[in-house]
Amino acid sequence: MDGIIMNRLPRIVILGAGYGGIVTAIRLQKELNYNEADVTLVNKHDYHYITTNLHMPAAGTDDPKNARINILNIIDEFKIVFVKATVKEIRPHERKIVLDEGVLSYDYLVIGLGGEPETFGIPGMKEYAMHIRSLNSVNLIREHIEYQFAKFKQEPYRREYLTFVVGGAGFTGIEFVAELAERIPKLCKQFDVDPSWTKIYSIEAAPSILPGFDQELVEYARKTLEDNGVEFIVGTPIKECYQDGVVLATGEEIKTTTVVWTGGIRGNSLLEKAGFDVVRGRVQVDPYLRVPGHDNIYVVGDCSIVMNAEGKPYPPTAQIAMQQGISVAHNLVATIRNEGLREFKFESKGTVASLGKRNAIAIVGNRKLKGYKASLLKKLIDIRYLYMIGGIPLVIRKARF
Amino acid sequence: MDGIIMNRLPRIVILGAGYGGIVTAIRLQKELNYNEADVTLVNKHDYHYITTNLHMPAAGTDDPKNARINILNIIDEFKIVFVKATVKEIRPHERKIVLDEGVLSYDYLVIGLGGEPETFGIPGMKEYAMHIRSLNSVNLIREHIEYQFAKFKQEPYRREYLTFVVGGAGFTGIEFVAELAERIPKLCKQFDVDPSWTKIYSIEAAPSILPGFDQELVEYARKTLEDNGVEFIVGTPIKECYQDGVVLATGEEIKTTTVVWTGGIRGNSLLEKAGFDVVRGRVQVDPYLRVPGHDNIYVVGDCSIVMNAEGKPYPPTAQIAMQQGISVAHNLVATIRNEGLREFKFESKGTVASLGKRNAIAIVGNRKLKGYKASLLKKLIDIRYLYMIGGIPLVIRKARF
Repeated sequence: MDGIIMNRLPRIVILGAGYGGIVTAIRLQKELNYNEADVTLVNKHDYHYITTNLHMPAAGTDDPKNARINILNIIDEFKIVFVKATVKEIRPHERKIVLDEGVLSYDYLVIGLGGEPETFGIPGMKEYAMHIRSLNSVNLIREHIEYQFAKFKQEPYRREYLTFVVGGAGFTGIEFVAELAERIPKLCKQFDVDPSWTKIYSIEAAPSILPGFDQELVEYARKTLEDNGVEFIVGTPIKECYQDGVVLATGEEIKTTTVVWTGGIRGNSLLEKAGFDVVRGRVQVDPYLRVPGHDNIYVVGDCSIVMNAEGKPYPPTAQIAMQQGISVAHNLVATIRNEGLREFKFESKGTVASLGKRNAIAIVGNRKLKGYKASLLKKLIDIRYLYMIGGIPLVIRKARF
Repeated sequence: MDGIIMNRLPRIVILGAGYGGIVTAIRLQKELNYNEADVTLVNKHDYHYITTNLHMPAAGTDDPKNARINILNIIDEFKIVFVKATVKEIRPHERKIVLDEGVLSYDYLVIGLGGEPETFGIPGMKEYAMHIRSLNSVNLIREHIEYQFAKFKQEPYRREYLTFVVGGAGFTGIEFVAELAERIPKLCKQFDVDPSWTKIYSIEAAPSILPGFDQELVEYARKTLEDNGVEFIVGTPIKECYQDGVVLATGEEIKTTTVVWTGGIRGNSLLEKAGFDVVRGRVQVDPYLRVPGHDNIYVVGDCSIVMNAEGKPYPPTAQIAMQQGISVAHNLVATIRNEGLREFKFESKGTVASLGKRNAIAIVGNRKLKGYKASLLKKLIDIRYLYMIGGIPLVIRKARF
């Protein structure tokens, strides 16, 4: 009996094929020998998407296909079993995962289920705002925006169809608003609408856009976007969102049929339901990225909290999720081979925020970049990532030069 | 005083740049010498559109630009003054036209204001159905349909987002439903939707689709479209239309968020308000296409009724509107030159109904055509029309070969 158990391969289950999950899978596939472990990757869709580029198909400035990568094109099915399913429940004590159809057992679990929009209890924000979080959700935003133009042509007295409110001016909010500023004039042309009738608002509760970012670059971003027609309202929380508009903390009302909320993200609610200690749905992991008290469960990406040297959490980004994936894969292989674990250390390689197709701001080490050069850097980062998960063939298929 | 009046050029005002109006204008421009008359063309938009092709941009199978022709590209501004304005009122006794901004006087008037959807008092049809009648309205239909797919991906339990109801199976209804049958599978692919979840209904009150058309060709059309997934419900009026569906006369209910009504057309309501005798908004014109009792007012296109030899009205088509435009232009020139008028005689050159991009049915004289050949005939008719109103340059710019 013991013999049979000893011979069974350790089962690794990865939940979610976002940045953290897919990098874990790809690295396991590379580092594990055949028959060293059973690896199963579970994801709701049969594709991975490049979340950091979703602001483009959301605005309609890029084809959603460019942000989409078929999982079976990048994993080796001899090494990793892919299951297209939705996770319903994590049962850490039984070491089981309940899917919409069926149940999986695991010895080691990697949770990379991604985030959910955090609306901070703002009334109506859940019901009436849209969110940039998946290909489906950005397709909705894009179609919704085009539809508002078509509806305006039927009811030209309703200017609220041409007013677009983006709540939150962090990275996602700013990148999206920049694409909108490029897209709206084209939609005006397509639908014969006077561009001066349109309004794009970026609304931020913090006193500045891109809170925490370099002040000089923030000023550049703000000026660039204002020149392109974006109106900023900072230091002003949204108090309420309803079917035809938003109310600001100042009492001011903006009539609009389009609100996109980018103001916050929290962890997946399944983690709290699994009995883990969470803060806004996220687990503060141990130095090896494991759930405290569960040495066989790793958490990567938006569901995890990693503290920096000053004891403040790193913001959830694609960059940190990818580095977490590399670390988790390394430690899983080490565990299986009875080797020592390595602590996770985040190494910032820099930060880029795009401001439309040919403009961006970036910090790399101590260097500040802005304009076209910074936008090339963003493309390079994309290419590097494609290469990492899919090698040259994926770069050729998906990179935009 | 008399001398001054004698020297004033006769003022011709053409209302509407649809088939009837634009052909009247183009023919006047060709036949009139400089300084023989003041001709003014009034239209709501600064473009003419090829109504017989609107079923394609409505379904999203063709770019709306292809159906759009800038009026200033085809008229000679030395001969015709173009005024972009909406007609608010026709005052036949004062010989004045009230526009949204300003007033025009005329000596001779040509009314080509087009039709309005006739919903036969079906409750909810005006409020909840869309109509194929202008570029703006077909843009709305197209964006609406795409939006339903995006919404379905957010609420995948709501199958009514994927159900499309076309009310009326006359020429417009059938041509549109054929394009939809080509378009829907592509949208399924784009949005990752199982095509078997979609439904396209064509609902007709008459006992057959394409009422009055050749039986053999009707059978061919029906079979072709059924093979492409269209479900026909004939001999069954729609009793009611509401936000989430339609109720048929049988009591059966179809849940849908998309209803396009092609079941009827009536004349522009301004004609009745002008004090003319109308039947469903249309004026039964005299043999010269004039309003009875108003020898200086001509009516062309959907606002006019012309009886055939059996005393039944010809159906309102692009073909008859164009022939009316030619006749009116001829008679206006004759009037100005004190020559005799010519009675209008409609000469049918045949009928084509497209069944998607590469298929159609047609009757030309006694010959029946179906399939690819008939679809080429439709293209030829398009080209002939483009040539007629804009010569070779327009054919080169707009014809699709």
